[in-house]
Amino acid sequence: MLDFDKAGGLIAAVVQDAESGEVLMVAWQNREAFERTRETGRMHYYSRSRDKLWMKGETSGHVQEVREILVDCDRDAVVYKIRQVGGACHTGYRSCFHRRIEPNGELKLIATEKVFDPAQVYAQ
Amino acid sequence: MLDFDKAGGLIAAVVQDAESGEVLMVAWQNREAFERTRETGRMHYYSRSRDKLWMKGETSGHVQEVREILVDCDRDAVVYKIRQVGGACHTGYRSCFHRRIEPNGELKLIATEKVFDPAQVYAQ
Repeated sequence: MLDFDKAGGLIAAVVQDAESGEVLMVAWQNREAFERTRETGRMHYYSRSRDKLWMKGETSGHVQEVREILVDCDRDAVVYKIRQVGGACHTGYRSCFHRRIEPNGELKLIATEKVFDPAQVYAQ
Repeated sequence: MLDFDKAGGLIAAVVQDAESGEVLMVAWQNREAFERTRETGRMHYYSRSRDKLWMKGETSGHVQEVREILVDCDRDAVVYKIRQVGGACHTGYRSCFHRRIEPNGELKLIATEKVFDPAQVYAQ
């Protein structure tokens, strides 16, 4: 159904708020992460740096509930329309895409507020 | 400004219709493709299979005009909000994400119509 061979066993997963259409994050999935996501209805990813399957929200509780799964023409990228509990970004913002690249190259914060305090949520 | 080292010189480019919020395609950019996009205001990509910089629309005329550029928290993925001339997908559909993965694993066409005829547009 999907082509995991083109990028070394991985596909790109674009996560979009099912209501607003806002893109919340982009991450990677291997076949196992994709299958676990379909089975459970909650977003799972593959971490390249940690070489590990992980579920979004396993530490923070900020799970992503899958509403719809779209696949692109060459079957190596997937759009997940989801419902986000809390925030998608580990920095506390709702979206990982909370900064704009300005014409002069500077990064400008466009998010108006953090939706959670990462120091509390990710405290051990 | 961006981290091109994490995925072998490439970043993921998510292309979103600036008006509707629809995700139209996902592709790759090396530093040159990113800089050319910023300079010209038109989407440029890097083709992994052809090892080549290309501009969307160079053959079809279906260019993508950049309205806004967002960057994610770890600076290896970018969302481009664009205006799409014609269709984003080489198959003739407006979006590359024109199919849904159904619960039984089948791919179901969700686009209602093609916006152009690829046999005509890509004819030599």
